[in-house]
Amino acid sequence: MPATLLHLQPDDPIGIARTLAARLATTALERDRTGGHAAVEREWIRQSGLLALSVPAEFGGAGADWPTVYATIRILAQADSALAHVYAFHHLQLAGLTLYGNADQRHRLLTATVRERLFWGNALNPLDKRTIATASDDGFILDGIKSFCSGSVGADWLTLSAWDHSVDGALIAVLPATQAGITVQADWDAFGQRQTDSGNVRFERVHLPADLVLQAPGQAPTAQASLRSQVAQLIMANLYLGIGQGAFEAARTYTREQTRPWFAAKVDKAQDDPLVQHRYGKLWLLLRPAELATDHAAVLIERAFQRGASLSRDERGAVAIAVAEAKALSHQAGLEISSQMFELTGARSTSAQYGFDRYWRNVRVHTLHDPIDYKIRDLGRYALDGALPEPTAYS
Amino acid sequence: MPATLLHLQPDDPIGIARTLAARLATTALERDRTGGHAAVEREWIRQSGLLALSVPAEFGGAGADWPTVYATIRILAQADSALAHVYAFHHLQLAGLTLYGNADQRHRLLTATVRERLFWGNALNPLDKRTIATASDDGFILDGIKSFCSGSVGADWLTLSAWDHSVDGALIAVLPATQAGITVQADWDAFGQRQTDSGNVRFERVHLPADLVLQAPGQAPTAQASLRSQVAQLIMANLYLGIGQGAFEAARTYTREQTRPWFAAKVDKAQDDPLVQHRYGKLWLLLRPAELATDHAAVLIERAFQRGASLSRDERGAVAIAVAEAKALSHQAGLEISSQMFELTGARSTSAQYGFDRYWRNVRVHTLHDPIDYKIRDLGRYALDGALPEPTAYS
Amino acid sequence: MPATLLHLQPDDPIGIARTLAARLATTALERDRTGGHAAVEREWIRQSGLLALSVPAEFGGAGADWPTVYATIRILAQADSALAHVYAFHHLQLAGLTLYGNADQRHRLLTATVRERLFWGNALNPLDKRTIATASDDGFILDGIKSFCSGSVGADWLTLSAWDHSVDGALIAVLPATQAGITVQADWDAFGQRQTDSGNVRFERVHLPADLVLQAPGQAPTAQASLRSQVAQLIMANLYLGIGQGAFEAARTYTREQTRPWFAAKVDKAQDDPLVQHRYGKLWLLLRPAELATDHAAVLIERAFQRGASLSRDERGAVAIAVAEAKALSHQAGLEISSQMFELTGARSTSAQYGFDRYWRNVRVHTLHDPIDYKIRDLGRYALDGALPEPTAYS
Amino acid sequence: MPATLLHLQPDDPIGIARTLAARLATTALERDRTGGHAAVEREWIRQSGLLALSVPAEFGGAGADWPTVYATIRILAQADSALAHVYAFHHLQLAGLTLYGNADQRHRLLTATVRERLFWGNALNPLDKRTIATASDDGFILDGIKSFCSGSVGADWLTLSAWDHSVDGALIAVLPATQAGITVQADWDAFGQRQTDSGNVRFERVHLPADLVLQAPGQAPTAQASLRSQVAQLIMANLYLGIGQGAFEAARTYTREQTRPWFAAKVDKAQDDPLVQHRYGKLWLLLRPAELATDHAAVLIERAFQRGASLSRDERGAVAIAVAEAKALSHQAGLEISSQMFELTGARSTSAQYGFDRYWRNVRVHTLHDPIDYKIRDLGRYALDGALPEPTAYS
Repeated sequence: MPATLLHLQPDDPIGIARTLAARLATTALERDRTGGHAAVEREWIRQSGLLALSVPAEFGGAGADWPTVYATIRILAQADSALAHVYAFHHLQLAGLTLYGNADQRHRLLTATVRERLFWGNALNPLDKRTIATASDDGFILDGIKSFCSGSVGADWLTLSAWDHSVDGALIAVLPATQAGITVQADWDAFGQRQTDSGNVRFERVHLPADLVLQAPGQAPTAQASLRSQVAQLIMANLYLGIGQGAFEAARTYTREQTRPWFAAKVDKAQDDPLVQHRYGKLWLLLRPAELATDHAAVLIERAFQRGASLSRDERGAVAIAVAEAKALSHQAGLEISSQMFELTGARSTSAQYGFDRYWRNVRVHTLHDPIDYKIRDLGRYALDGALPEPTAYS
Repeated sequence: MPATLLHLQPDDPIGIARTLAARLATTALERDRTGGHAAVEREWIRQSGLLALSVPAEFGGAGADWPTVYATIRILAQADSALAHVYAFHHLQLAGLTLYGNADQRHRLLTATVRERLFWGNALNPLDKRTIATASDDGFILDGIKSFCSGSVGADWLTLSAWDHSVDGALIAVLPATQAGITVQADWDAFGQRQTDSGNVRFERVHLPADLVLQAPGQAPTAQASLRSQVAQLIMANLYLGIGQGAFEAARTYTREQTRPWFAAKVDKAQDDPLVQHRYGKLWLLLRPAELATDHAAVLIERAFQRGASLSRDERGAVAIAVAEAKALSHQAGLEISSQMFELTGARSTSAQYGFDRYWRNVRVHTLHDPIDYKIRDLGRYALDGALPEPTAYS
Repeated sequence: MPATLLHLQPDDPIGIARTLAARLATTALERDRTGGHAAVEREWIRQSGLLALSVPAEFGGAGADWPTVYATIRILAQADSALAHVYAFHHLQLAGLTLYGNADQRHRLLTATVRERLFWGNALNPLDKRTIATASDDGFILDGIKSFCSGSVGADWLTLSAWDHSVDGALIAVLPATQAGITVQADWDAFGQRQTDSGNVRFERVHLPADLVLQAPGQAPTAQASLRSQVAQLIMANLYLGIGQGAFEAARTYTREQTRPWFAAKVDKAQDDPLVQHRYGKLWLLLRPAELATDHAAVLIERAFQRGASLSRDERGAVAIAVAEAKALSHQAGLEISSQMFELTGARSTSAQYGFDRYWRNVRVHTLHDPIDYKIRDLGRYALDGALPEPTAYS
Repeated sequence: MPATLLHLQPDDPIGIARTLAARLATTALERDRTGGHAAVEREWIRQSGLLALSVPAEFGGAGADWPTVYATIRILAQADSALAHVYAFHHLQLAGLTLYGNADQRHRLLTATVRERLFWGNALNPLDKRTIATASDDGFILDGIKSFCSGSVGADWLTLSAWDHSVDGALIAVLPATQAGITVQADWDAFGQRQTDSGNVRFERVHLPADLVLQAPGQAPTAQASLRSQVAQLIMANLYLGIGQGAFEAARTYTREQTRPWFAAKVDKAQDDPLVQHRYGKLWLLLRPAELATDHAAVLIERAFQRGASLSRDERGAVAIAVAEAKALSHQAGLEISSQMFELTGARSTSAQYGFDRYWRNVRVHTLHDPIDYKIRDLGRYALDGALPEPTAYS
C-alpha cells in the first residue's frame, strides 16, 4: 500500500482534505484566471491518498462512509471548486463500479484503483446519444463523441455510456483512457469551473471488451443501480454548498478586515453596521438550510448503500427527495451568497487581486448541470401527492 | 398516579398527541371564530396526561426528552395552534421551575403538578415592568399589571416576574392563580391565536411567600437558567412550523380534491398543472429547512439540559444560534405557506366554511412575539464574527 | 339632473371620492366584522354622483376618462375595498354596455343610468356555464345559476352571460334585477371582501327580451369588445393597489404613533430603527412599481377606448400586457405589504380594535380572481417572443 | 461645426446611439476579455457627435433634454456598459459645469467642448479626501491622489474635487488633463466594467487657476447645484437597466434559437416550456418597473433643470426620491436578470464564445458605487415620515 495511504486512518480524511484544500488555495485564484488542465494539482490530490477514500476496505481502500466522502468534497470546494469537482467525479465513477459492476469487475477494478492510484474520469452522459456502440465478437466497437466529460483530461480510466441502436438503449462501461481510438479533447471553455476538464471525448473504432461492460445495452437499472444519479446529484449539492461557504468566508473576512463603513451608517467599523449585520443574517439563513439538508441527504445515501440489492423503490425515492432538497437549497444558497457578498464587501473588493467573482462564476456554471425548476417541480409533485421522482440520470 | 398517566409509556406521547390533535381539530374552526377561553378543550389536554410529559420521572412525570415534548407541541399546532400554545407554555413554566427553582421547590411543585394534574400559565414578561415587588416580612407584596400572559385564564398556577425598585431588578416566582389579589383578565383580543388566553393579569396587594420565589430580585441568571428563553423561543418555532405544516396539508388536500384546473393550463386536474407543482415545490423548500432546523435545535436543547449546571456560556450560545435559525426559518415558512397556499387552492377555498385564513392569522399574530429582524441581525453578528446572542428573555 | 351630480365638475371627482372614502372609513372596520350587504353605504355611493362618472357626456354623465375613474376606485379601496369593488364593477358593467351594446342600447341604458341613478351589478361569469339560454319567440329564456356575481345584491340592473347549447357559445345581455324569476342570493361568505355581494344569482324561467341582448350567442367579440376583460383586470389592479396603499398608510401611522422601539435597537422611537426604516424601504419598492404600472395601464386603456372600433388586435394586446404588468405588481405589493406591515407595527397592533388583518384578508381573497401564475406566464411568453395574450375574459 | 454634428437633428440622437451601440457590440465581448483603455472606441463616440448632446443650443450643442440623454446612455449600455459609462460620465461633467459654474465658465467651457469635441473625465470623488488644495496667489496648488476616476484615461478635461484644510471643505474645479503635474494612472482592475478607465489620478504641485474653480472650498451647494449627484445616480440607474435589458435580450434570443428543451418538459422547443415562460415572466416583472421608474425619474430631473436657480429643497427632494427608486429597482433588475438568465439558457450558454457572464460582472461591479441598503433606507425614511434624502454626493 502506498505510503500516503497510511495517513488514511478512519479519523483522518477530513484533516487530509483540509491540508489539501489549503494547498490548492494558494494557486486557485491564478489557475482560475488561466483555466486549462491542472496537472500538478491533480497529482497533489493523487498523492493525498484521498482517491482511495470511498473504496471499500476489502479492496484495500479506506472504506469511508458517504458523509465522510462528501465532507472532503465540500472542504475542497471551499478552496477550489473545479478540482473538487474532478475529485468528486472520480468517486462517482467508483460508485458506478460498485453499483453497476459485477463482483469480479468490482474486485478487479477497485483493487487496481488503490494499487495503481488510478484517477477516474467521466464520459457517461445519457442525454448525449452521439456515441454509438456496435456489438462485436468479444464486446463492442464505440464510435462518436461525448460532451460534458468532467475530469476526462488526465484521467487513467473512464466510465462511459454509449447508445446501442439494436436495442434502442444505452450500455455503461469502463475503459482505460489510453485505449486506442479514444481522444480526450481539452476543449472545455465555460466561464466558470474552468479547470474541470469537462470537454468532449471522441471515440473512433474503440474496442470495448465484454468484461468491461458494467451494464448491458437497454438493461433497466435496479433501484440500487439507479442510486448513481443520486450520488452525482449530491456531489453537485456539496460543490454548490462548498462554493457558498467559501464565498461566505471570504466575504466575512473581507468585511471585518477591509470594508470601510459607509459614511451614512455612522459607525466606526463596517461590521457594526446594522444593515450589514442583517444582510449577513439573511445569507446565513440561506446557507444553514443547505448545510442541514445536504448533511441529512448524505446520511440517507449511506443507509441506502448499506441496504445493497435489497433497496426498495420507495427507499430509493426517499433518497431522491432528500437529495433534491439538498441540491435545490445549495443551488440557491451558492448563487445568492456569491452574488450578494459584494453588497457586504463593497466596490474595492471587486479588484482582480481578490478574484472574488470566481465564486459566482463557478457556482453559476455548475448549477446548470440540470434545471433547478424541474428539481423544484419534482419536489412539488412529491409534496402534493407523494409521487417519487422518476429514476433518471438526473433524479 | 391518575389513570391516564398510565398511557404515558415512553413510546406513547406522540400517539396521544395525535389523538388529542384529531379531537381538537373537530372544533378548531368553530372556536377560532368565537374566540374566548377553551375550558372544555383544556380539560381534554389535562385528561390526556400530556401535562406531565416534561416532568422528570423522579417527580412522577413521564420524563420525556425535549425533542419529544416539542414533537407533541408541533402536532397539536397543526390542528389548533392556540391550544398548542397554551399546552406548550405549561411546559415552559415547568422548565422555568427546573431551571430557576431550588431542589425543594422543584420537588414540591413538580410532584404536585403530576399529582394534581396542574395546568400552569404565564405571567412572566420581562419587558413589562409595571408589576412591582415590595419586600415584606416573609416575602414580597406584588402590585400592578402584567400583559401578554399566555394561558393565564384557567391556569392553576402562574409563573411571574415583578420589578423590585430597591435593587432595580426583577424577581421570578410562582403563585397559585387563586392567590388573593390576583385577577386574571380574559381580555385578549388579537385577530389570531384567539384562544391562547394571553391577556392581562392584575396584582393587588398580592402576598408572595419567600419560598415561592425562584430567583431573587436582580440576581443574574446562570447560563443554565438563561436556557428558559431558548425553551420559549423553540416553542415559538414549533408553533409556527406546526401552523405551516397544517396549512400545507390543508392546501394539498384541497388542491387534490377540490381545486378546479385553470382553463389555460389545459390539464384535467389542478395537481397536474406544472405551475401548481412548481409552486408547491417552492413552498416545500421553505417548509423542509424549518423542519430540519427545528429538529436540530431540539436536540441541542436536550443536550444543554443534560449538561445541567455545568453548561458553559459558549454551549448556551450554540443553542441560541440553533434556536434562532429554527425560529427565523419557521417564521418565514409559516407566513409564506399560510398566505401563498391560496394561489394553489383558488378563490372558492376562501369560503368561511373552510376557515383557511386562520393559518395566516394565527402565525401572523404569533410571529410578532419578538421582531424577526433582530433575530436575523443576531444571526448576522454571529456569522460575521462569532458573537453569541446576548442572553435575554428573547435571545 | 340630480343635485349631487352638480358636483361633478371635471376637476371634482377625486375630491368627491376622497370625501366618500373618508365617510366609508368611519364604519369600514365594523362592517368588515359583520359582513353582509352594505345598503346604507351603497346609498352614499349613489348620492355621491360618482355612478355617472364614466358615462359619456352625451348621455348626461361626467364623461371622465379612465385614469380618473380608476383613481376614484383606488381612493375608495384605500378605505373600504369591498365597496370600492362594488362601485368599480358598476362602471365595468357600463363599460360592457359601451363595448358590446349597439347605439340604441347605449343611449337608452346609459341615459337611464344617469337619470335614475342606477346601480349595476355583475352576473357575467364566463367560466360558469350553468346558466342556459334557450331561444324563445322574442329573445331567450334563462335558467340556471351563476356564481361570483359581484355587486348583485341591491343592484338595479345586471349584466349577465348565459350559455346557448344550440351554438355552443355564450350570449351577453342586461336585465333589471327585478325581472321575474331572478333571485339574487346573498350567500357570499369568503373571509375577505365580505361586503362585495359576490354570491350566486339564480335564474328560473327568466324572460330575456331580444333588445337587451348585447352580444348574440357564440358571436366572437371584436378587439374593441374584448377590452372589457382589460377594464375588469385593471379594476382588480387598482383594488389590490388601493388595499396596499391603505395598509401602508395604516402601518406608517401606527409605527410613528404607537409602536414601541425594540429594546435591542437602542433607539427612542421605532421609526428611528434602521431595520424598521429598511423594511419600509423594501415595501415602498413594491408599492411604487405597482403605482407606476397601474397608472401607465390606465393611460393605455383610455387611448384604446378612444380608438373605438378601429382598435387593432396588436393595440389591444399592448393594453393587455400593460394591464397584466399592473395586476401582477399590484397583487404582489398588496399581499406583501398587508402581511409584512405587522413586522413594522408589532404585536399590539394585532388587537381587534384596529382590524389591521382586514387588508390581508381583502387582498388575499380578491387576488384569487384568476391565477397570478398564468398572468406571469402570459408576460413571459410575450417577453420571449412577443406573443400577445389571447383575448379571454381574463386576459 | 464639425460635420458629424450635422447629424444631431432633434429627432436623431436615438438613431445615432443605436448605430453606435451596434458598432460597439461588434467588439464588446473581445474588449471585455482584454480590458484596458478603449481608445479606438472612444474615438467612435467622439465621432458620433453625441458628446455635444447635452450641451445647450446656445453654446452650440444639441440641447437635448435629459430623457433623451439618458436614453442614449441606456442604449449604449445594452451593448457595452463600460463605454456607456465613460460616455455618461462625460455628460455628468458637463452637468456639473452647468450647475456649479458661473455664466462665463459655462460659456467658455461648453463652447470649447462642442468646438473641440472635448471628452471629459471624472476626478471628483468626495469620499476620497486625499487630494489637498492649498491656496496660492492666483488659485490653488493641488497635491495628492484621487480614486475611482471614471473616464480619466484619455480625457481632455477633468472635473475634480480637492480638500482645503483651511476651511475644512472641498472645492470643485476643472482642469485640462494635460495640466502639468497630473498623472492619470490606468490602474483600474475590477472584474467588471473593465474599460471604464476608473483608476487613480495623481496630482503633484498642480496649478489650479482661480477661474477654473467652479465652487469655492467649503461653499454649501445650492439645491440646484446639488442636482449633480442626482444626475450621477440616474446615470447609474440607466447603466444598470441597460445591462439588464442587454442580458434579457441575449437570453431570450439564445433560448429561442439554441436552448435545448429539457427532456422532462416534454416540449419540442424550450420556449414552450411553461416553467421557462413563467421565469421569463418573473424577470420581466423586475425589468418593467425599473424601466417605468427610470423613465419617470428622467422627466423629473428635466423639470428640475428647467426650474434653474429657483429649484426648492422640496422639489430637489422629490427628484432624489424618484431617482432612488429608479436606481434601486434597476440594481435589482440588472443583478437578477444577469444571474438568472442562465436558468433559461442552460449549461451550453456558459461557453466563453458567448461571454454572457459579462452582464453579471458589469452590473455587479457598477452597482457597488454606493450601498443599495442605504438607498433603501432613505426610501424607507421618506415612506415613514416624508423625510427627504439629505443632499450628498450619493443622495
